Amino acid sequence: MASVEKAELLHPVVIAGGSGTRLWPVSRDTMPKQFVSLLDSGRSTFEETILRVSGEGFAKPIVVTHSDFRFVVAEQLAGLGVEAEIVLEPERRDSAAAVAVGALLVARRDADAVCLVLAADHLIPDRDLFVADCRAAARAASTDNRIMLLGIEPTGPSTAYGYIAPGEPLGEAGAFHVNRFAEKPDAETAEIYVANGYRWNSGNFLFPAGLMLDELAEFAPAVLGATRGAVDDAMRDLDFLRLDATAFGAAPRISIDYAVMEKTRRAGVLAARFRWSDIGSWDAMFDVKAKDASGNVLEGPVSVLDTRASFVRSDEVLTTVIGLDDVVVVTTPDAVLVSSRARAGEVKTLVAQLHRETRPEAGQHRRIHRPWGWYQRIDIGDRFQVKHITVKPGGILSLQRHHHRAEHWVVVHGTAEVTIDGTVKFYHENEAAYLPIGCTHRLHNPGKIPLKLIEVQVGSYTGEDDIVRLEDVYARS
Amino acid sequence: MASVEKAELLHPVVIAGGSGTRLWPVSRDTMPKQFVSLLDSGRSTFEETILRVSGEGFAKPIVVTHSDFRFVVAEQLAGLGVEAEIVLEPERRDSAAAVAVGALLVARRDADAVCLVLAADHLIPDRDLFVADCRAAARAASTDNRIMLLGIEPTGPSTAYGYIAPGEPLGEAGAFHVNRFAEKPDAETAEIYVANGYRWNSGNFLFPAGLMLDELAEFAPAVLGATRGAVDDAMRDLDFLRLDATAFGAAPRISIDYAVMEKTRRAGVLAARFRWSDIGSWDAMFDVKAKDASGNVLEGPVSVLDTRASFVRSDEVLTTVIGLDDVVVVTTPDAVLVSSRARAGEVKTLVAQLHRETRPEAGQHRRIHRPWGWYQRIDIGDRFQVKHITVKPGGILSLQRHHHRAEHWVVVHGTAEVTIDGTVKFYHENEAAYLPIGCTHRLHNPGKIPLKLIEVQVGSYTGEDDIVRLEDVYARS
Repeated sequence: MASVEKAELLHPVVIAGGSGTRLWPVSRDTMPKQFVSLLDSGRSTFEETILRVSGEGFAKPIVVTHSDFRFVVAEQLAGLGVEAEIVLEPERRDSAAAVAVGALLVARRDADAVCLVLAADHLIPDRDLFVADCRAAARAASTDNRIMLLGIEPTGPSTAYGYIAPGEPLGEAGAFHVNRFAEKPDAETAEIYVANGYRWNSGNFLFPAGLMLDELAEFAPAVLGATRGAVDDAMRDLDFLRLDATAFGAAPRISIDYAVMEKTRRAGVLAARFRWSDIGSWDAMFDVKAKDASGNVLEGPVSVLDTRASFVRSDEVLTTVIGLDDVVVVTTPDAVLVSSRARAGEVKTLVAQLHRETRPEAGQHRRIHRPWGWYQRIDIGDRFQVKHITVKPGGILSLQRHHHRAEHWVVVHGTAEVTIDGTVKFYHENEAAYLPIGCTHRLHNPGKIPLKLIEVQVGSYTGEDDIVRLEDVYARS
Repeated sequence: MASVEKAELLHPVVIAGGSGTRLWPVSRDTMPKQFVSLLDSGRSTFEETILRVSGEGFAKPIVVTHSDFRFVVAEQLAGLGVEAEIVLEPERRDSAAAVAVGALLVARRDADAVCLVLAADHLIPDRDLFVADCRAAARAASTDNRIMLLGIEPTGPSTAYGYIAPGEPLGEAGAFHVNRFAEKPDAETAEIYVANGYRWNSGNFLFPAGLMLDELAEFAPAVLGATRGAVDDAMRDLDFLRLDATAFGAAPRISIDYAVMEKTRRAGVLAARFRWSDIGSWDAMFDVKAKDASGNVLEGPVSVLDTRASFVRSDEVLTTVIGLDDVVVVTTPDAVLVSSRARAGEVKTLVAQLHRETRPEAGQHRRIHRPWGWYQRIDIGDRFQVKHITVKPGGILSLQRHHHRAEHWVVVHGTAEVTIDGTVKFYHENEAAYLPIGCTHRLHNPGKIPLKLIEVQVGSYTGEDDIVRLEDVYARS
């Protein structure tokens, strides 16, 4: 039974499986924007989202993500000291399937429990106002059995968002029926929407779990059937809930907007009061950041001359700008983006072009994250390659073998436990191990501090795919 | 005696000591633009200049350069198979002193010999026309005892160059008296100059050696006295002629234009027919390069979207541009420049700003050239640093010792002869040497192909200045 008490405990469902390219080159397929430290707080939007729904009045969050991101999700949750249920999608199936999975899992807790579905890549600076608005929306959802969208007050006639036209008020203050959903408009139409009090559809919403399942059953039974099967046959794998791949693969690729929102008669909208951004482009990121006296946002090793209203960011490489206004310059160690701010939304098109040009930088970062830590190529040439490898305390690489390369490992920080053809030996700072071609070997950090080593590979082929994994504690073999 | 026969053999004096910053980040103090492969030919402007004055009708060229650039000059000459006299300035003293040194050395060959003074950083695409113009100017210089400037026909009212007003004709076709020298004008004045047939002062000129010495004696006796002493007391050092530092240090810092040209009554100007650029900015570099259908010059790993009339160049790092026109983007592994093309001349101001901000990238390249080859840092962290070292065949590093770091060397290409505390051992590809803290060591490439090794330094201090040089074949200890 829906009731006002149910609105007191919100069950967060954080959707964190996207692989946005609109903030390339910082955001890439292998490490999308929701996990990158892009905010002034130094945290990722995923971390900020989790913090926003942790604490009193919130149940243990459910994080629905893609299998590829399981280790970064686990690591960022651990860093925050927050426990969550991490649900792994074996492949991408758009938002309807992810919402269905969340609703099914919450319904197992309590069919009347109120779900709060949140994107992991949005920015909401004022948590108190956000929580207050969520409580109001939850009351409306629970007492009136509604799917309540959080409708944002437009700061301008944006053409980047869908709009919601509020209708008659509901019982809860600030809550309304939905008169209509409007797709992303052209500029002229957007002006009219804003003048008529339409709200931006933030894609964040609340509902009693059972209501969403009812609506899915009516309007998207294939999504519900597939996800119910995927949840019923899900497997525990380490700390993760791995959805059944066969069942999940049968789910249609459809957004929750098309599948349910635009069809249901139970939609409502809350006139949310909090500030919000989906940070959907470098220009949107610029908008939410503090500016200096010249109207610039300058981050990292950056120096500019007579430049205004520009966003210049670099991780590492000195980046300079002369005599330009309204530009975005983003430098990473292996890629540079220069764009007019007005055109920054076209990064997606650029990345598609880079994929056609088969540039690995389109989708991959130079630093590759692994469950045991990360590695990064620092030099490459004919018949050799050099990597920096950092292994977390307790991290263990797979037991492996290479057919075409020998490796030299020089420990520069911490302690390595190295197993070569069954013999275990410890290597400390300033000690080197040699791994002949064809030997089986394993690297383990048995210590309390990160292990850092320089790996020099020499051989006729140094590609990543020359690896035979014999055993893997992270179940990757 | 000046005579037409003397004009048959030109004595080139190439001035190659400048350290221009206007093409930063490619050109830096430690490797200025004249030595960088920037042209479509793949050669440096210094190499192109040397090729332009090699062959029939040219005496052995004299290259006047700064001591810091002696190895790159020697290496580029060797690469071309051209012999030259390399004269080293112990410090910078502007162009009058360099020209005086050239005139003094040519006068020792023959006081009536005709010198051809050329900047090492200019572009002149058509060698035949250039040589024909030089011959004509040399005849005028020799028969009429003149300092003949090569006056360039303006392609527009540039404010970047000084102008020369031609006067009455001399006997040689295309040769004229100089009516006046005009400093870099404002835009309006430049229009008038061009309308009146003024010519750009290219800073390249010809004269009988004895005439220049006479004019220096009259108008700049301090320059002549100091440089004469520096040449008289010069020392042979390997293949170099090292000017005496004490004597040379007494030369006033003055340009040849101020010291002599604007005062002499013996100036003439040749209406040169060849195309010329001093490539004094990225915009000037853009002007001399072939454009694609969008009017862009794209060099290296570059991808652009809806971008026109722009110069985008990268050595290594993928560089992208969206929706901008008339910009310059230059990426090197450790620095990025983004500028409007119209403002590219302000790079010099930017570099001064970077020096004030004590950014090492302002003056130093990541790749450091040494007489034996080069090295480049590829990773650095707390208590460690990693370098790629390439040693030319026959190259020998100094016998040295470090107080604070041990080193691991892994050979990835070629063969190394390593001396550690007096013991010599050979290391081949995929072999590693260990150099404990405090050992004396030397590295030598005894082979016929480049030696490449990865050096991993571990210790409490990894700065370049922790080096005790005990012996050095390149006289640097």
